[in-house]
This record gives sequence, structure tokens and C-alpha cells, in this order.
Amino acid sequence: EEVSKLLALKAQLVTEDAGPQKFTLKTPKGTRDYNPQQMTIRNNVLDKIITVFRRHGAECIDTPVFELKDVLTGKYGEDSKLIYDLKDQGGEILSLRYDLTVPLARYLAMNKITTLKRYHIAKVYRRDNPAMTRGRYREFYQCDFDIAGVYDPMVPDAECLKVVTEILEALDIGQYILKVNHRRLLDGMFEACGVPADKFRTTCSTVDKLDKSPWEEVRTEMINEKGVSPDAADRIGEYVRLNGSTELVEKLLKDEKLSKVKAALEGVEAIKTLLQYCELFGIKDKILFDLSLARGLDYYTGVIYEAVLTQPIKIGNEEQTVGSIAGGGRYDNLVGMFDSKNKQVPCVGVSIGVERIFSVLEAKLAAGDITVRTSDIDVYVASAQKNFLEERMKICAELWDAGIKTEQSYKKNPKMLNQLQHCEENKIPLAVVLGDSELKRGVVKIRNITTREEDEVPRNDLVQEIKKRIDNLNLNQLNGAT
Amino acid sequence: EEVSKLLALKAQLVTEDAGPQKFTLKTPKGTRDYNPQQMTIRNNVLDKIITVFRRHGAECIDTPVFELKDVLTGKYGEDSKLIYDLKDQGGEILSLRYDLTVPLARYLAMNKITTLKRYHIAKVYRRDNPAMTRGRYREFYQCDFDIAGVYDPMVPDAECLKVVTEILEALDIGQYILKVNHRRLLDGMFEACGVPADKFRTTCSTVDKLDKSPWEEVRTEMINEKGVSPDAADRIGEYVRLNGSTELVEKLLKDEKLSKVKAALEGVEAIKTLLQYCELFGIKDKILFDLSLARGLDYYTGVIYEAVLTQPIKIGNEEQTVGSIAGGGRYDNLVGMFDSKNKQVPCVGVSIGVERIFSVLEAKLAAGDITVRTSDIDVYVASAQKNFLEERMKICAELWDAGIKTEQSYKKNPKMLNQLQHCEENKIPLAVVLGDSELKRGVVKIRNITTREEDEVPRNDLVQEIKKRIDNLNLNQLNGAT
Repeated sequence: EEVSKLLALKAQLVTEDAGPQKFTLKTPKGTRDYNPQQMTIRNNVLDKIITVFRRHGAECIDTPVFELKDVLTGKYGEDSKLIYDLKDQGGEILSLRYDLTVPLARYLAMNKITTLKRYHIAKVYRRDNPAMTRGRYREFYQCDFDIAGVYDPMVPDAECLKVVTEILEALDIGQYILKVNHRRLLDGMFEACGVPADKFRTTCSTVDKLDKSPWEEVRTEMINEKGVSPDAADRIGEYVRLNGSTELVEKLLKDEKLSKVKAALEGVEAIKTLLQYCELFGIKDKILFDLSLARGLDYYTGVIYEAVLTQPIKIGNEEQTVGSIAGGGRYDNLVGMFDSKNKQVPCVGVSIGVERIFSVLEAKLAAGDITVRTSDIDVYVASAQKNFLEERMKICAELWDAGIKTEQSYKKNPKMLNQLQHCEENKIPLAVVLGDSELKRGVVKIRNITTREEDEVPRNDLVQEIKKRIDNLNLNQLNGAT
Repeated sequence: EEVSKLLALKAQLVTEDAGPQKFTLKTPKGTRDYNPQQMTIRNNVLDKIITVFRRHGAECIDTPVFELKDVLTGKYGEDSKLIYDLKDQGGEILSLRYDLTVPLARYLAMNKITTLKRYHIAKVYRRDNPAMTRGRYREFYQCDFDIAGVYDPMVPDAECLKVVTEILEALDIGQYILKVNHRRLLDGMFEACGVPADKFRTTCSTVDKLDKSPWEEVRTEMINEKGVSPDAADRIGEYVRLNGSTELVEKLLKDEKLSKVKAALEGVEAIKTLLQYCELFGIKDKILFDLSLARGLDYYTGVIYEAVLTQPIKIGNEEQTVGSIAGGGRYDNLVGMFDSKNKQVPCVGVSIGVERIFSVLEAKLAAGDITVRTSDIDVYVASAQKNFLEERMKICAELWDAGIKTEQSYKKNPKMLNQLQHCEENKIPLAVVLGDSELKRGVVKIRNITTREEDEVPRNDLVQEIKKRIDNLNLNQLNGAT
């Protein structure tokens, strides 16, 4: 019988082929866990962003984490090599989503939806070289707001910019500008400078590097790798150093070369309208019309934008340059790629670079610049003496049933010091302290953890007394008294 | 030049190898998109659940969607074949997570965390046969609450049950019971009935089928497939028909066969303590001690539980049986499997079957039993006349900047009828209606969409007048007046 017991024990400990741990315990390359502090930061940031999205009437959708591989094929140009494929285990050939834009286009085409204002916050996957301290992961959040539908020019486009400003104000992470440009203007500019049409997209990708590389390097790449003539490159160089506002619009409309190219004029006129709408929205002072803005993705067809923090962020005693924090643009031809009749649904949208925001806030947390509370417990039910588990349980249940956020020790006879320490470490504001003598008199003590003041209340009034104190604490907090 | 333009146009339309759509547009087998209505249902359900989790002081964590394949190996027994593997693209061998429990155990072991109360809500992946109308998918949500740490027996275990009752009350989806049993009692029972120790786990898996199959079938499987003797099977059959409460505990403590087996007595004593704690938590009337409850997973070591709806749910004119809606138990040996020294962190937890809840609510929505609002816009800025886009934009910006959820048409000159229809379809309560004559008098009209009443307010007081009306609407809603 002893043998049988030992066998039972062994069966419990070792299931099948799982021996003791032999491999290094880690998360896959370029990924990470979010611990409670990181999750609190993440959820606080996302809550603020969602509030803005919903203020503008956006609805929420979600799509599967993987798509048929065919859905993603041919949408990302050179970057297609970064797509994660699933193993062929019999059945469909699948890939992890690379962004939320292509799944949106697939969703619109598949369901024949022609108008939608939606936000989508979810993880996407890229087999890129991770730079995790800078917030660049292989699994990371995208946070997208898009407006699909046939509407009048620049009306939804301007609202996307308004949404970005409201988000950056709500997050309060420093001064910023919103750079805008237009793909039609870029195309027209390339044409005016003598770039052949079949080289527009690839030249555009090279211009996109201007935010990281000096003009000389970009020029060399254009000439040597993209086959643009030195003359054409120099002419492009003249234009891409231009930025400004309405006065630049007026200048370009009169520009000798550009004014002869239809695409360029269309682009400039569009920016003119956009600036006008931004003025009505009260955000024109944040907008910079910048001819060097190109954006990497192939699928943009109209306005493009990028939000950039203009000052380094202070983290502890150091400063960190963050740069681009949101980007987007108009893509009128993507949905049609999923429709057998090539039926288009024009779209415009913006993506908030939440990973960069998380990474800044996590660095601030590590430097002690900010603190976060990972649980929001208001009351801890404690006891100074032994054998109070049953009474503690009864009180916890009463408080929970009244909707009060309550905790207690899971030990039968916890030490008083440990209980109070738990309250202080977790910034729990109130403790109910049970004791023999008090219970005999029909009272319990309520302790304010910060002030260490204690007072007695009738046991039967406990719930309402606790509620009163929580309301007071919240009121004080609103008034900045804590 | 015309050719160059055409080429540019073509370059815009066709990127690389993406031709017109040739494959059937769908989501991968067993997965689905969530449209705005489904997302609203999902988020409402999850919000209620999170409120309960946080009321009990749970912190939130997240882990990557994929793990090193080695992490999952040997944790799921026969079900391992359902794991999604990623393609070997050079680098680590990865698999999609199968549940949230193994990642939690990996997280605890990797970070050497010995106490944690956490919730985790995320999608998991199983290459199972989908039954999507019944809420069974290949990509689906898990919603887990777990308490890790060395504590006194049954204290955290009882709290998990309390959490489940609070969630089911908050969701208000019908009457339920919480079945409980104990793995030590099951083992002891198998031993007492004459099952050899190395067949405990596999016999347990067979008992687990009792919720779907009659005893006769289960008995046959035990004898023919698991090699249990007919006598032993019959003895098990006597026990698994037992269920009850404290009186059953007392009966089993005196049971001739069980009282001789240490494991059985330990299990029954544990249930006795659990019932006592449930009484203190005020939930004992919901608990059914049920010897037929076995739970499929191998890793449980102590108490196991399952919440079951006891009545079919009415959907339109039909009724649907939902059955199990939450389940969990204690697993004290899982974390140790990831530790090179086999150091254990005891855990107990519960998983809420949110997909079943979503599927019931979606069916109710389809049957017209419930309605949902997918956006929560309070104000629509409309105009009866042409050329009001600029004024509408200014007003929208004012309202947004005051935090008011506001929408307008993206068309320059939308028809009044379409604007009002949009308000009615989307249950937007208020409209600001702009008109020439009013603006000349320095006023604007506010229209109550439900009552169709309109009144004029000074243009300059618009924001505060709108706020006043929103407060009134909310107040009326709280008082049930709408």
C-alpha cells in the first residue's frame, strides 16, 4: 500500500515527458511580460487614448491575431520578410498580423462595409531586430483610429489630426508638432524634378529616411541605389528642405516647376484646405507643412502625417529624445485590393505610438519620477490577535457585497506588523482592526494608514462608516489635499 | 508625359505581387472578427468581471501571445496536439499559448515571484474542432484570476469561489451552482475502490466525462480503455453519484472504505473547511459538494470547482442550455516544473468562461432581447442649410475641448434628414442645429432627439447649456425615466 501511495505521489509530480526544467526560462526574443506596474502604466495610457477616440464617436472592433497568409501577401513591400508565419500543421496557411490596417481593409472588404469610424488596439508581430530599451519589440501594441467612407476632402483627415492633439494633451508628455505632407504633392514634386514615374515609390522611401539621415546620405542613396539622376536629386533636395504653413502653400502654388504638374497642385491645394480646417479646429499652431515628410508605407495615397515631440523628455537626471509618437495618412486604394471588382473604400487614419509612450513612462517609473498603484484596494481587514480569521472573513464579505475594494491576509494568524506593512507598501488608505475587547463592546477600529489615527465605530455601522471615509479620501484627493 | 502619369497611377494601384483578389476572403478557421456590437458586449462583460477582480485586490499582468515551445511541452497531456506552432524561420521554436495558466507558472518561476494575486484576460489558441455557434473557437478569450503563495488551507480557495459568485451576480445571467470537489478525495476514492495508483489520472479524466455522458458509458470506458476492473468501476459508480453539503462531508468521514485512506480523509476535511469558509462569506447556499466533478486538466492537486447555470437561458422564443460557465482549482506543482530546483509556488485560481457568456449575449442581441450602443456620442452638430461646415467644425472643436462626446457629418452639405436619421439610429440624445437666422441672432438650437423638442440658447453659452442637458439626461437615466 505504501508503494501505491508513492506511485500516486509520483504521478502527481511528473506528468508525461515533462522532466525538471532544462532550458533557459525566458520569453521569446523581442517579447516581454508586462508586470503589474507596467500593466498599470499601459492601461492608464490606453484609457486616456480610448476616451479621446470615443469622444469622436469611434467604435471598437477586433480581428484575429492571425490571418490567411494570402491576406498579408503583397501589402508590405520589402518588409514582408518580417512577417511571422505559422507552421503548416494541415489546413490553412496562416501568418501573424503585421499591423492593424491590412486586417481593417480585409474586414471592410469581406463585410462590404463602406463607412466606419473605428479604433483598434491590439498587438502586432514583426520579426525585426528588437531594441527593447527604446520600446521596439517583436510583439508590440498598435493603437489605431481610422475613418472609412466617401466624404468631402480633408474633413475626416483634419479630424484625425484633432484626435492626435487631444491625445497628446491628455497624455501630457511634452511639446509636439504635427508634420503634414501629401503623397500627390510628393509624386508631383518627383515628376517636376524629372524622376520617372516608376521610381516615385522607391524615391519616396528614400526621402523617408531624412528624419534619421542627413541630406547628403539620402542623395547618395537616391543616385546610387535608386537610379535617380544627380540633377533630379538636387532639385528634390531644394524642395525637401522647405517647411512652414499657409505662406509655404502660397509659395508652392506659384512655384515655376510645381505649378505645371497637376498632381503637385492637387496636393498643395489639399494641404491648403487641411490647414484651413485645422484653424477651425483650433490646432493650426501645432501643424507644420513639411516637404521632407514621406512615410515609409507604400499604400498612402493622400495626406500623410506624423506627430513629433519637439523636446527631449526628462527621465531622472537624464534626457531622452523620443521623436515620432504618432503617424498616419490617407490610403484610398487598400480596401479595393481585397475586392474582386476592385471596389474602393477610401480611408484615413492615425496610429498612436503607444510603445514609445509606455517606454518613456516605464523609464520615469524606474527613475522614481512617477509612482503607480497596481491595485486600488481601499480597505484592509486586519487583526492584532489570534483566531480572528472567521470574523475577518465575515467583514470582508460584507464590504465586498457593498462594492468596497477590500483585502485581508490569507493566513490564519498574521502578524500585525506584516498586515500594516502590506497596507503601507500597497498604499491602502484604511484598515479595519479587529480586537477582542472592541468586539465585546460591539465596536471595531478604523485606522487611517497615512495619519495612523484610529477611531472606533459600531460594528453594525461599519459598512456605511467605511463608505463615508472613502468618499472623504476621494474628495481630499480631488482637492489635492493628499 | 501622359504615359508617365499613367505609370504613376499604375504604381499607386498595384504594389508588387498583389494582383486583384483571387482567394476567398475569410478569417482563419475557428476565428472571427468582433464587430462593434460584439465588442460592446465583450467590453461590458469584461468591465464587470474586472471590477470584481479589482475589488479583491487582483493586479493585472500580460504575457506574450507565443512562448518557447519547450515551455508548453508536457503540460497538457493528450491535448498537446492542439497547440499551434510557429514556422521555424530561423531562431527560436515558438508556439502560441494554449492557456494563461502555464504562462503564469513560467512568469512566477522566471521572476522568482512567490506571492501574487493577479488577473489576466487574453486570447489563447487551440487547434480544436470549432463549434462557433456555441461559443467554441480556435482563438478565444480566457479570463483568469489566480492567487499564488504559501497560505493557510482553503483561505484563498474560498475567496476564488466568492469572486465567481460576485461575477455571476454582476453579470446577472441566471441561477447557478458552484460544484466543488477535491483531487485528494478523488485519488483516495480511486485507491479505496481498488484502482492502481498509476491509473488515478487517467481514471480521473474518464470521470470528468460524467457531465456529458451517462454513467454506463463512463463505466465502459473505464473498464475497456483504462483497464479498471469492473468491481472497482462499480465501487466508483457508487461514490460519484453522491452530492450534497456538510451532511455529505460527515457521511464520508464515517464511510467504511474512505475513512481508511489518508488522501480521501484529507480531501474531505479540506472540503469541510471550504464549506465553513463559504458560510462565512455568505455563499454556502450556492455550493454543491459533488463527487462526480473531476475536471480534465492533469495539473490540479487540491480543490477543484466548476460553476454551472442551473436553468436554460431564454433567447427569443427558444431556450439554450449553457452549463459550465467557470472552473478552476488548486495546482501546487506547476510552477515547480519550471524551476531547476523544483521549488514550488502553490496556486489556486478560477477561469471565467467568457466566450459562453459572449455567445449567449450575442444570441440575445440577434433575437432582439437586448440592445447595445456601440458609440456613446452625446451631441451631433447638424445644419439645415448649406455652407455650414466651418461653423460646425468650430462648434465641434469647442465641444470636444470641453470633453463632450460629439460628432458631425464628414460631408460639406449633408441633408438634414440624413443627419437626424444618423442621430436616431445611433441613439444620440442631442443635436445642435445651426441655421442662418439663428446665428444672426446669436443663438443656436438644441434638439432633443427622442422628444423632438427644440429650444434656442445663446451661441456663447452653448457648451454649458449642452453640459447641463447631458447631466439631466444621465440623471433621468439613473432614475429610470427613459
